[in-house]
Amino acid sequence: MLYTSTDNPKIKKIKKLSQKKYRDKYNEFIVEGRHLVLEAYKTGHLKELILEKNELFPLPVETNYVTNDIINYLSILKSPTNIIGICDKKKEVKEIGRRILMLDNIQDPGNLGTIIRSAAAFNIDTIILSPDTVDIYNPKVVRATQGMLFHIDIIKVNLIDKIKELKTKGYKILGTKVTVGKNLKSVEKMEKFVIIVGNEGNGVDEEILELCDEYLYIEMSPMCESLNVAVATSIILYELDK
Amino acid sequence: MLYTSTDNPKIKKIKKLSQKKYRDKYNEFIVEGRHLVLEAYKTGHLKELILEKNELFPLPVETNYVTNDIINYLSILKSPTNIIGICDKKKEVKEIGRRILMLDNIQDPGNLGTIIRSAAAFNIDTIILSPDTVDIYNPKVVRATQGMLFHIDIIKVNLIDKIKELKTKGYKILGTKVTVGKNLKSVEKMEKFVIIVGNEGNGVDEEILELCDEYLYIEMSPMCESLNVAVATSIILYELDK
Repeated sequence: MLYTSTDNPKIKKIKKLSQKKYRDKYNEFIVEGRHLVLEAYKTGHLKELILEKNELFPLPVETNYVTNDIINYLSILKSPTNIIGICDKKKEVKEIGRRILMLDNIQDPGNLGTIIRSAAAFNIDTIILSPDTVDIYNPKVVRATQGMLFHIDIIKVNLIDKIKELKTKGYKILGTKVTVGKNLKSVEKMEKFVIIVGNEGNGVDEEILELCDEYLYIEMSPMCESLNVAVATSIILYELDK
Repeated sequence: MLYTSTDNPKIKKIKKLSQKKYRDKYNEFIVEGRHLVLEAYKTGHLKELILEKNELFPLPVETNYVTNDIINYLSILKSPTNIIGICDKKKEVKEIGRRILMLDNIQDPGNLGTIIRSAAAFNIDTIILSPDTVDIYNPKVVRATQGMLFHIDIIKVNLIDKIKELKTKGYKILGTKVTVGKNLKSVEKMEKFVIIVGNEGNGVDEEILELCDEYLYIEMSPMCESLNVAVATSIILYELDK
């Protein structure tokens, strides 16, 4: 079917998926571009395909066509890719793994997406987000994950309760501070761990830090106060991947 | 002096500094926020301060005041900080150091700024950019450097000519590829090196790769094709900082 008007209820509904409240209501989100749509399809999340009317992308899912104006209306990109996928949200995580990344209140969508991408690269099993972390289905987060969103388990729960539970199960709880603690370069291999990274401006919450067994820091020039949070997290995950 | 109109020639000129051609014409650029303005001042780059009329920030440089509307007009931020600094561009680099980062055609301002910040953190002496790399004085680049722009030497030249010159001076030339070469984790300490990182989508130019002595790659899960370029570069710089 070809849709030609932004007033069409179906198009209006897709547009609403750029807002969290509608993503939560419909339990759906959108991805853009061939690579992300393919990752969604391969992992069983792709529900429907919306293509610009001259675009070809044969996949065995419901496919509808729209005008170029509608693609521009729906896209968050400066140069839209003409391919939009409507996806089901990920299923609930039943069991958490041995290598856990915990994120306390990350606010920038690009940072969260980049961290998810790096976590998949460095073999993290489960990402645990504080409830105030930016939504993983935010289109900018999805884009920055480069499809890795579909390949890693992510849950959102109260961190303090979860840390207390994981401590009883033998996980080593590692906090991050800018200068205090153990130099990341001397960290040993661990079987079961939780590494906790904090908010862009404020770092990890004090109450959470008190629950940690150890703190890690990244050695750097005294001229530089800190690193970008996605960079710092990725360096830590790179080093812990042994 | 208090400026109240966006039609004022002085305000118009400041606004133009958001465009590269005017930054080049006037040899100036702008920074926003207390932290960046202070870094500009401490390193001798701050020429003039523009404050929202109720803002206090006593620094011994020419200070002018503007209305809130003008701050909003000049700022690139969603929540402007009420503090704008007009800076002289950095002086020409006379001598390059022993630890060099070379960037081939990085296009995203956030990526370039983040890389500059990490390069300062991990003791790179000089950053060499290809002529087609995004402008370092782009406001989004400046913001992402978190002030580190003022603390590291940066030059923009033809990379191939420069690599040929540096090879004759005993620098080890290291390229980066996604999977081929030497695992970054086994890299040894080097006295004089050039590490080359490439464009977001295309990596390092083939002609440049042919000039390299060795290639480095970051080991990661086969599920993940690549990392964000600022993340990958930062991990490499972290590992080379020994």
